[in-house]
Amino acid sequence: MESSKLSPQDIENQLKQLNIEYILHNHEACMNIADLQQHTKLNHAPLIKNIFSEDKKGQCFLISARHDTIIERAFYKKLGTSYSNCRMAKPEVLQAVLGVAPGSVTPFGLANDTEKKVKAFALDENLLKEEWLSFHPLVNTQTIEIKREDFVKWLASIDRKPEVLNLSEKEEVAAKPEKKEAAPKEKKAAEEDKDDTKLKIMHKKNERFSDWYTDVIVKGDLIEYYDVSGCYILRPWAYGIWESIQSFFDAEIKKLGVENAYFPIFVSQKALNKEKAHVEGFSAEVAWVTKYSDTDLAEPVAIRPTSETIMYNAYSKWISSHRDLPLKLNQWTNVVRWEFSSPTPFIRTREFLWQEGHTAHATEKEADEQTYAILELYRRVYEEVLAVPVIKGVKTESEKFAGGHYTTTVEAYIQENGRAVQSATSHNLGENFAKMFNIQYLDEKNEKKWVWQTSWGLTTRSIGIMIMVHGDDQGLVLPPRIAKVQAVIIPVIFKDSEKGKLDAKAKELEEELAKAGVRVKIDDRTNYSPGWKYNHWELKGVPLRIELGPKDLEKGEVRLVKRFDGSKSQLKQENLGKQVAEILEQIQAAMLAKATEKRNVRLREAHDWESFMKHLNEGCIVLTPWCFDEEEEKKVKLRSKEEAGQLSASESHLTGAAKTLCIPLEQEPIKEGEKCFFTGKPAKKRVLWGRSY
Amino acid sequence: MESSKLSPQDIENQLKQLNIEYILHNHEACMNIADLQQHTKLNHAPLIKNIFSEDKKGQCFLISARHDTIIERAFYKKLGTSYSNCRMAKPEVLQAVLGVAPGSVTPFGLANDTEKKVKAFALDENLLKEEWLSFHPLVNTQTIEIKREDFVKWLASIDRKPEVLNLSEKEEVAAKPEKKEAAPKEKKAAEEDKDDTKLKIMHKKNERFSDWYTDVIVKGDLIEYYDVSGCYILRPWAYGIWESIQSFFDAEIKKLGVENAYFPIFVSQKALNKEKAHVEGFSAEVAWVTKYSDTDLAEPVAIRPTSETIMYNAYSKWISSHRDLPLKLNQWTNVVRWEFSSPTPFIRTREFLWQEGHTAHATEKEADEQTYAILELYRRVYEEVLAVPVIKGVKTESEKFAGGHYTTTVEAYIQENGRAVQSATSHNLGENFAKMFNIQYLDEKNEKKWVWQTSWGLTTRSIGIMIMVHGDDQGLVLPPRIAKVQAVIIPVIFKDSEKGKLDAKAKELEEELAKAGVRVKIDDRTNYSPGWKYNHWELKGVPLRIELGPKDLEKGEVRLVKRFDGSKSQLKQENLGKQVAEILEQIQAAMLAKATEKRNVRLREAHDWESFMKHLNEGCIVLTPWCFDEEEEKKVKLRSKEEAGQLSASESHLTGAAKTLCIPLEQEPIKEGEKCFFTGKPAKKRVLWGRSY
Repeated sequence: MESSKLSPQDIENQLKQLNIEYILHNHEACMNIADLQQHTKLNHAPLIKNIFSEDKKGQCFLISARHDTIIERAFYKKLGTSYSNCRMAKPEVLQAVLGVAPGSVTPFGLANDTEKKVKAFALDENLLKEEWLSFHPLVNTQTIEIKREDFVKWLASIDRKPEVLNLSEKEEVAAKPEKKEAAPKEKKAAEEDKDDTKLKIMHKKNERFSDWYTDVIVKGDLIEYYDVSGCYILRPWAYGIWESIQSFFDAEIKKLGVENAYFPIFVSQKALNKEKAHVEGFSAEVAWVTKYSDTDLAEPVAIRPTSETIMYNAYSKWISSHRDLPLKLNQWTNVVRWEFSSPTPFIRTREFLWQEGHTAHATEKEADEQTYAILELYRRVYEEVLAVPVIKGVKTESEKFAGGHYTTTVEAYIQENGRAVQSATSHNLGENFAKMFNIQYLDEKNEKKWVWQTSWGLTTRSIGIMIMVHGDDQGLVLPPRIAKVQAVIIPVIFKDSEKGKLDAKAKELEEELAKAGVRVKIDDRTNYSPGWKYNHWELKGVPLRIELGPKDLEKGEVRLVKRFDGSKSQLKQENLGKQVAEILEQIQAAMLAKATEKRNVRLREAHDWESFMKHLNEGCIVLTPWCFDEEEEKKVKLRSKEEAGQLSASESHLTGAAKTLCIPLEQEPIKEGEKCFFTGKPAKKRVLWGRSY
Repeated sequence: MESSKLSPQDIENQLKQLNIEYILHNHEACMNIADLQQHTKLNHAPLIKNIFSEDKKGQCFLISARHDTIIERAFYKKLGTSYSNCRMAKPEVLQAVLGVAPGSVTPFGLANDTEKKVKAFALDENLLKEEWLSFHPLVNTQTIEIKREDFVKWLASIDRKPEVLNLSEKEEVAAKPEKKEAAPKEKKAAEEDKDDTKLKIMHKKNERFSDWYTDVIVKGDLIEYYDVSGCYILRPWAYGIWESIQSFFDAEIKKLGVENAYFPIFVSQKALNKEKAHVEGFSAEVAWVTKYSDTDLAEPVAIRPTSETIMYNAYSKWISSHRDLPLKLNQWTNVVRWEFSSPTPFIRTREFLWQEGHTAHATEKEADEQTYAILELYRRVYEEVLAVPVIKGVKTESEKFAGGHYTTTVEAYIQENGRAVQSATSHNLGENFAKMFNIQYLDEKNEKKWVWQTSWGLTTRSIGIMIMVHGDDQGLVLPPRIAKVQAVIIPVIFKDSEKGKLDAKAKELEEELAKAGVRVKIDDRTNYSPGWKYNHWELKGVPLRIELGPKDLEKGEVRLVKRFDGSKSQLKQENLGKQVAEILEQIQAAMLAKATEKRNVRLREAHDWESFMKHLNEGCIVLTPWCFDEEEEKKVKLRSKEEAGQLSASESHLTGAAKTLCIPLEQEPIKEGEKCFFTGKPAKKRVLWGRSY
């Protein structure tokens, strides 16, 4: 850092001189929002993204907004420049103007801009709603939480005033051309122009993963942001995927004798507190209803974070004899966990949808079988429905479900950000809850026994995992089984005279495809060009595009474009329904195969610490022989975190602790004399490690 | 009242002397909990049921518990008597001991029991959780709210101590015979004994409707009570009905182009308050989350009572051109309305399940069509799926949805308690919400327009209505289309030697029925007698019982018993699947016809006040010519309430105001010169009135 620039300590001193109280957090280097989500635990403030741009004239602009704000480019005009003229400022400019390195952009850097090279500091108006804000004090290993009004006070002290703008505002609809009689072609062009940025994913999956993800889910019509933090709107394109998952899983559990029911969303304090380990696992995230209208409730009620404590009093009433067993119930509901970490749509949200199954059995063996039968169904949901490869395993003691006996899991992996994701868990609860909730039965010999229980859940997180695994730089890529639209037919019309014939043939083919069970749609809108339509349906991830042009019509063919690999081919129109249905099946299988291959390349083995860290820092998940010592597990977490923190940003974008993902069910047996990779003690089994969501 | 007995004023004086503060409510005479729910608005206390029994030895017992407590009979033993020896005390005993009339039973009556004829006053232990209690001060036109501790203080002042018992406790499982080697037959008898009271509905539908209802839903395995007031567990037998309704309605709305989505459960204060009339309609019932774990939220969030204000900000973003219209979304969710009135399972609950549809259209005409298309689907849900006749109509201005343009409704009717029930509503919202949430589109001429909107909802209340309409003194009666089990096969085995053959044939028939699409189940349990099984499946409302005895086997027949009318017939085994499938269709139609006939008998017309009140007091719904004056509508409510209050309990169990249910769509046109039944002014249309849930 150049000596002429301020140090973090200087910033702190400025605040102190202004009598401003603030909270200072020290943490590992955070290069992006994902890192911040992982490594910072802020008391009050939201995470904030700060963008530093430079336009062609050399004017600089600093922009700050809540991390989850969708920034529209229209506002650049209000700053006297335009988006197309701007780019990210280079590291040397960053250093010269704000006195910070890449990854440390912060409005506190304005204190270094004595020459006022920053033409405007744009603050999203939504930040004015926040009582607290958070910024790096020039380095990304520290974050300062500061009250909004104090931040404005500090800004004034360095003679800066932010321009408060609505950064999410699109261009005014009314700003459209006023000429009412525009010729059709002009109109078309105008509309396409307007929609142009809506059709492009602005970030590369490999480069800026979390921005890419936000862009894909919003532009792909899956998610709409919402004004309660951590809550998102699931649009039909996303909810339809959930309906596909539901229809598969619901039918399968019914085959296993599971029945659906519905238990209340509210849980009394007394019931919630019944199982000690369990409540400790959840209490930090529990939301409480304390009043209705203006009246305080005599006793606040919690909103379910999960329903063990809601259901098991009833189980105790319903079960008295071995003839009442097994009891197998499931419910499809919403749950609320007021998570501290910053939310990510689908992956970590304060409200989410899930199914939760809860069974009671006479014996340990039956509970074991149930636990694993469900685990296998979860594997099938991922692999057969979502085309996402997962690894089945058992959680270590320190990672298991609070209050349970043991936890099984399916673990997925996202190559581009090197993170593993816990994808669904199935717990054997043992007799723990039975003892707390007094769930006993008389067996055939008239003896009282505790029941054995299981619980298991699969959430809308699965949709996020699917998007992350399959999506590409053009947008969503949907496996055929979950796509609301599996094939889109686009008539490619050059002359108006062709329109009638092409539309009629398209209609005919649509009917044939529908008859063959294909979910098909014609896009015959006249206000968009074929090219626009190609982009639109690509962005939305539709598995197959069927183009029908005049030449195709002549030859009795169609042109087929597969979304997942972009491959193109000509197909005879005869028997098109059957052909397409088969191709969709092939795509489903090919997508799983492709994802599995990608995952396997990053699934490494390590027998010592050095290679373990090397693989980790390459974004891999790592299988190691392990001694199963809980204290040593903590040490691995700590040490991997420390060592990652020491790497400079250029060496690895990956920071944070490695944790155990699972003990894979399928693994090579430990060889005679094989040692734990970390302690050198005799290994018992192999464990899979990774950085995880 | 005998002069030697205390007056309500005497009770008040006793409380005052003890310096006890209390709240006195004056209301109409309430004969039962349903009346209390209708007519009292308590500030703090729950409603409490008080039962006064006398045993064969002439010992009296007073029992008090929350209104929704399921009282098990086991506790009578703890009082030194038994349930079977007890009966409701006769009016003369009530008067002599407690100094009250039937319908006014209250622990305050213990003040009159100077001779201590009441052997025990049993107080349910759950009442100790309440801060406030409520009891009549000897008359059922007043209710006193008193703090629990003050009530105990008063009890002590008259030298009474309650016996605090868990009145819901079943007999201890362990209290079962200890002989482990009981012969099979003894065992069977013992178990059936134990289950005996579980199999009987203890109240007549015609006599004690609300007790009958509670008994049916609990013993029929539909509902389990829960420890958060107003919330109930929907057991699989009930949830399965909801699944049937869902699968019908969901498929139908998809045909209309409606897509499913999911919007968050939480709504910010700002969004909730946007539409003034709307928020006034709901604010009294809104539950608020104010903290998570121990931390207060900066801004509390409400739980959706309905989702207009949650969805329409997003609609404003999604809609900008006429090409974005119509927008038709639906969601299947839970909602929370913290109702003040005491809850009734299914009918009025603080959390309930529903679907809510929300559409936006370019024109008023389209919105009208949508509103009525959904209304027609609601009619079909009731009549075709639930076999419940409904009347389609439009609400009067004073009864319409808060903030909407107009409301259409389907109204059902429960003969046995003379009440109408609003069964589902479909609203045309006009442009009202569009203006509040700024939902505009550019039409073909590039002019800005507000959208027209509709919203519509159907809830789990529908299950309650179906139970009330079809249930009888033996329990539930399910229409075949919604029954999880449509036919139960019961092998009737007299000798062990017959068992093999009968079971094999039963199995064969089960397969055939299943193949014909019948949801069938064999009950071949050996620990219950055929008679027990008949009662069991009758109670659960299974539409068809198929008995298979040795003689049936010989003759190649089965015995068929229809649940809804109890009719019995012999059927040849050949082609049983097809026969049964047809019979189930016939039952479905016959149940609707039967219910329609019952309803029509109670659907009367009136042209003057006298006949209007006469019909009302006979428990009817009444069609009248009407002048459509809102002020006069209020007067009808008031006057009908006053006049009903003047009737003594013996003349009519029905109290409360009559209100307008709807303006039926199908009605005879008003004749030249026809007058409003109430004002004598010219009538405009006919309106349907009734006492309503």
